[in-house]
Amino acid sequence: MTASAQTASAQTDFAHTKQLFHLPEGVIYLDGNSLGPLPLAAPIKMQTTMRDEWGEMLITGWNKAGWMAQPTRVGDRIARLIGAEDGHVVIGDTLSIKVYQALASALELNPDRKVILSDSGNFPTDLYMAEGLIKSLGQGHELRIVAPEEVEDAITEEVAVTLITEVDYRTGRLHDMKALTEKAHAVGALTIWDLAHSAGALPVDLAGVNADFAVGCTYKYLNGGPGAPAFIYVAPRHADKVEPALSGWLGHDAPFEFERSYRPGPGIERMRVGTPPVLALSALESALDIWDMTTMQAIREKSQALTALFIEEVETRCPMLTLASPRDAAKRGSQVSFRFPDGYAAMQALIARGVIGDFRAPDIMRFGFTPLYIDEGDVTRAAAILEEVMTTRAWDAPEYKARSRVT
Amino acid sequence: MTASAQTASAQTDFAHTKQLFHLPEGVIYLDGNSLGPLPLAAPIKMQTTMRDEWGEMLITGWNKAGWMAQPTRVGDRIARLIGAEDGHVVIGDTLSIKVYQALASALELNPDRKVILSDSGNFPTDLYMAEGLIKSLGQGHELRIVAPEEVEDAITEEVAVTLITEVDYRTGRLHDMKALTEKAHAVGALTIWDLAHSAGALPVDLAGVNADFAVGCTYKYLNGGPGAPAFIYVAPRHADKVEPALSGWLGHDAPFEFERSYRPGPGIERMRVGTPPVLALSALESALDIWDMTTMQAIREKSQALTALFIEEVETRCPMLTLASPRDAAKRGSQVSFRFPDGYAAMQALIARGVIGDFRAPDIMRFGFTPLYIDEGDVTRAAAILEEVMTTRAWDAPEYKARSRVT
Repeated sequence: MTASAQTASAQTDFAHTKQLFHLPEGVIYLDGNSLGPLPLAAPIKMQTTMRDEWGEMLITGWNKAGWMAQPTRVGDRIARLIGAEDGHVVIGDTLSIKVYQALASALELNPDRKVILSDSGNFPTDLYMAEGLIKSLGQGHELRIVAPEEVEDAITEEVAVTLITEVDYRTGRLHDMKALTEKAHAVGALTIWDLAHSAGALPVDLAGVNADFAVGCTYKYLNGGPGAPAFIYVAPRHADKVEPALSGWLGHDAPFEFERSYRPGPGIERMRVGTPPVLALSALESALDIWDMTTMQAIREKSQALTALFIEEVETRCPMLTLASPRDAAKRGSQVSFRFPDGYAAMQALIARGVIGDFRAPDIMRFGFTPLYIDEGDVTRAAAILEEVMTTRAWDAPEYKARSRVT
Repeated sequence: MTASAQTASAQTDFAHTKQLFHLPEGVIYLDGNSLGPLPLAAPIKMQTTMRDEWGEMLITGWNKAGWMAQPTRVGDRIARLIGAEDGHVVIGDTLSIKVYQALASALELNPDRKVILSDSGNFPTDLYMAEGLIKSLGQGHELRIVAPEEVEDAITEEVAVTLITEVDYRTGRLHDMKALTEKAHAVGALTIWDLAHSAGALPVDLAGVNADFAVGCTYKYLNGGPGAPAFIYVAPRHADKVEPALSGWLGHDAPFEFERSYRPGPGIERMRVGTPPVLALSALESALDIWDMTTMQAIREKSQALTALFIEEVETRCPMLTLASPRDAAKRGSQVSFRFPDGYAAMQALIARGVIGDFRAPDIMRFGFTPLYIDEGDVTRAAAILEEVMTTRAWDAPEYKARSRVT
């Protein structure tokens, strides 16, 4: 037994949560960091929502089934997973839209500064949404992008707000949220944390680190389903001050008075925009039940053991792959990435053999580790199959070379 | 048999489509203009999407199940219902977000003008989103709101864009889309048509009237389910020119290249923002199958007969109610509204007796007529129950007076 396997065996056993997911026969799913698998309860809950609520209650479901309160009710359940204060997270829209809302709010709170600081490890949509907002504002804001390791030094008194994804989507590199937030506040900057690869992956303590804004998606580690809605957090000290750029009717103080002018609702309510996506929220709400059975601390311990084991196994078996993730478990999220020039084709060959990870341009083979349903046996089996793909050059077949739009 | 009932009997019989919906026992549903009822096929399709696609395909569903192409594929189906050119409608987000996108684009195309013209019959979220955009732009744009009957005269050379909902959500008053679009173009203005109460309610001919932009929702007459996503249309002559304000990664020309800067995708693709809501789109796609069984012309004929019959019945039976909708069927959408000072309580009493309409402040009792599943028998029974509520003053009971958040 290797050292990391021994460590792993001392962790919490997640056999009880693994049983709560549908995992297809013959598949080892290491892509829950992109799309979580189906919780078995979700389609049952969806039937209830569709047949008993939508079908039977019709329009009265907005009150009777609690649909109207769903975005904040479900938001509170996510708040517990990311260390947010109760009543300060709301669900809706996509992560891109939530980035836009947070960024517009932060710039308004810090009107004398023009720099939005991000890093080259941020997910592109965050950068794209910032570009769009800067163009709309037309006030000469600058999106300044530095290397991940330069972020701390780049937080200067010029910076209005930092827009940082805590866990790098390609390498899994983990930023120090506490240190960067402190640095930002010390120089009068605000912070937006994108938790896309953090929520459900590792403990986050938004209130504890004094974060200003956070956003994230729910279809990765939170298993809400393809295209599940996003969330936004606004710190209590800002929540009643921000004037929403996307001032939709459900963020109005009295949406059903149908007033002619916008008046923001109380606190986080003003970050609501349009009609909530009830069906998607239903699947998500069901998926979140599973989190009541564990703690983020237990998840993190197991996740670190699983990623350490995978690195050890793959480095032993596949010397042609180069580790792209931090070797120190404390400095990476819940994924492991390797670089390989023919990474796209190798990942296709691997998927064809039942091990599902994904590829991120230009050369990253990415594997997500999700203790809720991935265990040590999966990790060693996946590494063995990867070894077979690499040593037999299985990836060197024409059918794996053609890039499709999504991997 | 009354005159209008005779007319109605000459219309298309929709018994075959009525069978495709779940309509609760003892309920006459006259609120499909707010939330359409459950198509029986929708929960079955949802099970397939959840179990066979999400469950079995996992991340590969984006390609294998065609999720990535869903927003434009479903968009094309809506395009046929609103007279749009193929390939120029895309689904996603909420109507509020789509209004923001259309308005930002229109203002960019008409940069020398500062007036956004709307009317007091527009749905408030359209006005609120315009307020938010104006504030963000900070260029001194003005949201000019006139009475519905003053719109045509108010379209002057000052106007950059008109933002008009074709069918007034309270009264059902129908704007002349062709005349107003012509007037707008004659003075160099652009047009955004909000089709919330038009799509699936009456024939719309966006290409024929030379509309510039249109937006709409899919949970009303299109029966997509609570919180179903919205759609946006951009005329082919503008589609490759607009620079999206909400520049999200799925509107990028090459989203999976993860480039650092935004480059808009071709045509309508650039109006995509974040990850598409697959589950909600699945329910919507299923609901749209029903539209292959009829035509918008047949729907319109039947709808006019049903609304005429309801007006005749209610005016005969309930003299205390005042018609708020145009009496001329050609000038109203697919709803009928009556004013009554205690309208909120009267609607609650009516709902308690199985006739579901809704209330819109300050005094509007609103009834939607949807030929797919409402017939003449429903209309006369609903009128008789309304008569009972009104003549017995059933609404004058304390339990009906307390306003809840949503009706």
